[in-house]
Amino acid sequence: MQLTDLNTPALLLDQKRMQQNIAQMSEKISGLSCKLRPHLKTCKSAAVARHIQKPGTGGVTVSTLQEAEYFAEAGYTDILYAVSMVPQKLGRAKLLQDAGIRLTFILDTMAAAVLMSTKAEELGTVFPCLIEIDSDGKRAGLKPEDSLLMDIAHFLKSAPGTTLEGVMTHAGGSYYCQGKAELKVMAEQERSAITTAAQKIKAAGLPCPVVSLGSTPTALFAETLEGVTEVRAGVFVFHDLVMQALGVCDFNDIALSVLTTVISHNASENRLLIDAGSLALSSDPGKENPAGQKHFGLACDPVTCEPIEGLWVTSTNQEHGLISLDQTSWSFEDFPIGSLLRIFPNHACMTAAAYSEYQVTNDSAQITDQWGRCNRW
Amino acid sequence: MQLTDLNTPALLLDQKRMQQNIAQMSEKISGLSCKLRPHLKTCKSAAVARHIQKPGTGGVTVSTLQEAEYFAEAGYTDILYAVSMVPQKLGRAKLLQDAGIRLTFILDTMAAAVLMSTKAEELGTVFPCLIEIDSDGKRAGLKPEDSLLMDIAHFLKSAPGTTLEGVMTHAGGSYYCQGKAELKVMAEQERSAITTAAQKIKAAGLPCPVVSLGSTPTALFAETLEGVTEVRAGVFVFHDLVMQALGVCDFNDIALSVLTTVISHNASENRLLIDAGSLALSSDPGKENPAGQKHFGLACDPVTCEPIEGLWVTSTNQEHGLISLDQTSWSFEDFPIGSLLRIFPNHACMTAAAYSEYQVTNDSAQITDQWGRCNRW
Repeated sequence: MQLTDLNTPALLLDQKRMQQNIAQMSEKISGLSCKLRPHLKTCKSAAVARHIQKPGTGGVTVSTLQEAEYFAEAGYTDILYAVSMVPQKLGRAKLLQDAGIRLTFILDTMAAAVLMSTKAEELGTVFPCLIEIDSDGKRAGLKPEDSLLMDIAHFLKSAPGTTLEGVMTHAGGSYYCQGKAELKVMAEQERSAITTAAQKIKAAGLPCPVVSLGSTPTALFAETLEGVTEVRAGVFVFHDLVMQALGVCDFNDIALSVLTTVISHNASENRLLIDAGSLALSSDPGKENPAGQKHFGLACDPVTCEPIEGLWVTSTNQEHGLISLDQTSWSFEDFPIGSLLRIFPNHACMTAAAYSEYQVTNDSAQITDQWGRCNRW
Repeated sequence: MQLTDLNTPALLLDQKRMQQNIAQMSEKISGLSCKLRPHLKTCKSAAVARHIQKPGTGGVTVSTLQEAEYFAEAGYTDILYAVSMVPQKLGRAKLLQDAGIRLTFILDTMAAAVLMSTKAEELGTVFPCLIEIDSDGKRAGLKPEDSLLMDIAHFLKSAPGTTLEGVMTHAGGSYYCQGKAELKVMAEQERSAITTAAQKIKAAGLPCPVVSLGSTPTALFAETLEGVTEVRAGVFVFHDLVMQALGVCDFNDIALSVLTTVISHNASENRLLIDAGSLALSSDPGKENPAGQKHFGLACDPVTCEPIEGLWVTSTNQEHGLISLDQTSWSFEDFPIGSLLRIFPNHACMTAAAYSEYQVTNDSAQITDQWGRCNRW
């Protein structure tokens, strides 16, 4: 099948680039004597996941129970649910336990720990838990120095219904770093926070077998992972324009793109219109382009996947993408109505979520396969 | 079924508010002696559409072929596809024609008109077309004074494979108006542009039976629709925080919300965490709140749907929503871990697109029904 056989917009996945990205991350993490626990919230696809880690060969990370159920069905038996768990969801989670899945939860408040223990008892089970640590102030977790850390650790260890498995953190602040030096500093900040927390727990004579951290930028820029047992990362599989702008990848590492058709030429405003809008690309604003402009993607050649200089998606509506030709050397003749473009997305996780499947492409931009996704909750 | 029986995040639709919104728009448009051709890209739901207009009783508008096929299956036979049409999609569209659907297309370039005619001949059919007019410089269409308008009109009239049905415009610029006076001006600007274009076509002795315009803000603020034959609007069915910020609706008109669970209290940052993030709410930035802050939604009471003062979703990650309690009088005790909130979305069309169904609620916040949606392309 050819690109021209697809209805647009369509989600394209360059399999070779994806495999190169996976190999790069795998080598990086094993080179630092650590294990990868891939975050599957980006791909949400068993076909993609198999290329990262075969079922039964190691742990994975998810962000919804829907993903946990889907990847359990696909043969993954060691699953970390990396969003704070609440009691209402534990009944559904218990069904996975009953099916033989080792499902580990995270939490960062005493209230959640107490609710977890109580609900586990009610369900007649025990839930393994990690305590979430805050390494960047950006989202969730306890600061390593927070005295609550030890209170919760003691509680999880001693309460019926829970076991203390260790600690985890996610330095999403890495997405705001400027340049490689800052990325290295953030990677070390993440490692330092999580190993400090782990040491406190171990020093108190409590178990802490799992010391888990990760984000794609920190994983790729870590210089040591001493004291860390596993790295979680997800977007590295595809990369995107945010990763490129951060200096984490190059344009030609981006494996995910949206195939779109040029649907109009707006001569009075000097704009191309394409059929990839905010639903097809997502509204994620990503990072400004080198000219300091907000955008929703960068056009590239549909076959070679080479970026097209200056061809940024300058705005979107639900089913319309607008590409200004101002400040470019392009004219309408270069992109006839009905011609195809690929758009590199700002944020791969968000863009992919609008699609039920990947159209897998090879070097010659032939469609070699369709790989399904598990969306929603 | 109760709210507490739902997995969160879930998409809630308050049926009474929806019906009031529909009644308001229907009365407004019929009061101006015009017809409503509802844009079903917002709801993408046959169950919702039936409340706006029963199948077979009038025309509807769609923005994807997927929607056209879905609503055709639901009994709608007069469908305007309100995004510029390209030849690659006409084979699929022809199947709808063959099934007895009157499908009308729009275009705004001579190239698209020629391609349409050529492809129609190849398919052995004739496609009815409207010419898109630009009434606000924001997206697509020809300015009414553009000489190309008459060239395209003559071409569509005389070419094999096309018929000239009239003109259409969408003043999406209404989303950037400040206050009701500007909305009224924009509504008149939209009407003036489309009726000017229609008059030019008629003055040349060409047919122009359809004079179509619309957006929810201009539809609700139009003082006259003289010369207009139909109004397209979509988001009025649900309304959202953008419409509220524009002064187009009140908070208690917003029929769509996302049910979410409080999953953590981040004491060091004074933030609630909820399980509605950028996938559940969308990344659409909407309008700043009255305090001038960017946000991704406003929390309201899960049962009464009353807005909770100052409880804005201040940032999101894929499956996390963050609500800062700074600058509010609330404390963590007011929102225990595991408690429910509803979040009013910035942009209903974008938020709803993440879900496969609506959980329909009544006055007592009971779940009375599930209504499906048609997503993707």
